[in-house]
Amino acid sequence: MKTVNRFVPGLEGVIASETGISFLDTEQEKIIIRGHELIELSHERNYLEVLHLLLEGALPNAEEKEALETKLKGMYNLPDEIYHILKRLPKETHPMDALRTGISCLAGYDQNLEDTSVKANKERAYLMMAKLPALVANSYHILNGKEPIEPRADLSYSANFLYMITGEVPTDTEVKIFDKSLLLYSEHEMPNSTFTARVIASTLSDLYGALTGAVASLKGPLHGGANEAVMYSLREVDSAAGYEQYIMKKLKNKEKVMGFGHRVYMKKMDPRALVMKDALKQLCELKGDDKLLEMCEAGERVMEREIGIYPNLDYYAAPVYWLLNIPIPLYTPIFFGSRAAGLSAHVIEQHANNRLFRPRVQYVGESY
Amino acid sequence: MKTVNRFVPGLEGVIASETGISFLDTEQEKIIIRGHELIELSHERNYLEVLHLLLEGALPNAEEKEALETKLKGMYNLPDEIYHILKRLPKETHPMDALRTGISCLAGYDQNLEDTSVKANKERAYLMMAKLPALVANSYHILNGKEPIEPRADLSYSANFLYMITGEVPTDTEVKIFDKSLLLYSEHEMPNSTFTARVIASTLSDLYGALTGAVASLKGPLHGGANEAVMYSLREVDSAAGYEQYIMKKLKNKEKVMGFGHRVYMKKMDPRALVMKDALKQLCELKGDDKLLEMCEAGERVMEREIGIYPNLDYYAAPVYWLLNIPIPLYTPIFFGSRAAGLSAHVIEQHANNRLFRPRVQYVGESY
Repeated sequence: MKTVNRFVPGLEGVIASETGISFLDTEQEKIIIRGHELIELSHERNYLEVLHLLLEGALPNAEEKEALETKLKGMYNLPDEIYHILKRLPKETHPMDALRTGISCLAGYDQNLEDTSVKANKERAYLMMAKLPALVANSYHILNGKEPIEPRADLSYSANFLYMITGEVPTDTEVKIFDKSLLLYSEHEMPNSTFTARVIASTLSDLYGALTGAVASLKGPLHGGANEAVMYSLREVDSAAGYEQYIMKKLKNKEKVMGFGHRVYMKKMDPRALVMKDALKQLCELKGDDKLLEMCEAGERVMEREIGIYPNLDYYAAPVYWLLNIPIPLYTPIFFGSRAAGLSAHVIEQHANNRLFRPRVQYVGESY
Repeated sequence: MKTVNRFVPGLEGVIASETGISFLDTEQEKIIIRGHELIELSHERNYLEVLHLLLEGALPNAEEKEALETKLKGMYNLPDEIYHILKRLPKETHPMDALRTGISCLAGYDQNLEDTSVKANKERAYLMMAKLPALVANSYHILNGKEPIEPRADLSYSANFLYMITGEVPTDTEVKIFDKSLLLYSEHEMPNSTFTARVIASTLSDLYGALTGAVASLKGPLHGGANEAVMYSLREVDSAAGYEQYIMKKLKNKEKVMGFGHRVYMKKMDPRALVMKDALKQLCELKGDDKLLEMCEAGERVMEREIGIYPNLDYYAAPVYWLLNIPIPLYTPIFFGSRAAGLSAHVIEQHANNRLFRPRVQYVGESY
């Protein structure tokens, strides 16, 4: 048995998997997705093309792209029973917990769960991706006492997703920006939720189980909850000067300022944040109101000046979602909806070349 | 940043956590639970006493033991809504998936989810432990089109658990043996499900989320599914000679024989298996029919002779559960019900001294 006897808290820097899916190249400051740079993809491709890249290993040609869009459109709807179940949940249920329950329930409709082959897993992943917008949006609507919104198969994936959230058909610009945010959130190497999914999948448990665990992980305040926390912070004040003061006070009280820093990027700016900052600029321009952008820039400056750390994706995704009229409690469920693309790729890869995760411990308890 | 650059598949031998909860001392062949030997505990204590040891850090005195029993008895019942939800699941739903859904739903009844203090977590864990027998048993009954069975607060924890499964008040011997099985399954260092729970909890996500992920993990055929697989194997034949032939054929075809070997024990017998083997002897004697014992012993002999590996706990827990009239599809859910004790202790420990799990990868994908 090979043994690494040194305890590294949080497995920081420990190589947990070999993967062909993605890599954070911190030296070159690049996020690599199957050999492509994520930032370049965000300028040239849309979310479904990256989904294709993640699951099929290559970007789609025009035919494949259309086939994928058509395929997903045919599966947008959820079984009615799922809505009945969601209606029975306590109204105080956290949206991520409702989403988790919904995914857990969907497993019961899969009559082929034991088949963890690449082919079966891919079909399962596409089905899940098709249904996630309905599950994300409608679980929230139902918790708020509203009726679920019917998906619209005449809308593109991201347009339908945003439509189901707001109940209004979005403009092309809004769709493009929302799609870009999904693309940027789609995959990011081995954050906690991806690690969770792979650890679960390594028992040869199925995609539904792995994703259920990943929702639970992403719900954590140290993980996916950050985008919501950023927006709640921005809502605390009403001007750039006010936000600077707000952050200075947090720093003085040694409280965490949300939306900054990343264990892997460390002292550099998350390159995805820049793309979302551009989207924020675009939206502010359209609305003729720069305040949110000015507040964010003020926060960015003060954090760089005071402690030298930089915004991450959540920091600029949050105000973008705000200007897209997305309710704050949906920011993390949407993050999950997007990340399910990468998570599915990781589950497929784990199943295809599996080794059960089963580490050891350093016992520091009562002597015996 | 500290870095361990060598990739170890499955993190085999890698120290993932410091823990005061338990340790598999393979040199001394002991399973240690907070300084106590699990096998000794199984002879001297019951499951709830070990639950107390796991959550409170010490075995209970007589008063504490009674207080714990009384406390749990007051919380045996599930909200009716949970039963309504379970009735909406497709009848083909896997019992572990129904259990997972039920746990996920229960989060909505906790109005204090953000409080991950030791005190709040302990109360949450006791509530969960009190309700798991009803959830495990009744989710199964409901999937089978039956009405849920009301918990009986006049019965001890393990007596009520077994009663809810079979619908019949068990004898004292049956309760004692079932309780022993729960105790033996209660905690086991860092198997995949415990690791899953800790990884999720490290985002400061709550106990419900961590347990939801752990159910998904335990469902996997490489993890908790083994006890059911053992029983299905034993049901394939009808005699000791037949079982020997069955196993020989499996070995010849290079198929996995269920219930043998363990990554950590390697070439030694799982000490818990011996305790369950004694329980099997006792049950066979009571029924006046030694066939299952003889079959298991034949399997044990042939596996030792042919490939030198030994039974694990699942191998002897399976026929014990069979003779206790427990339906096979409930073996893994019961395993989870028991292990929730240890899992809760790990979540509490993780929250109390946290570091986010966020490992790295070895990128082996397309060049860039």
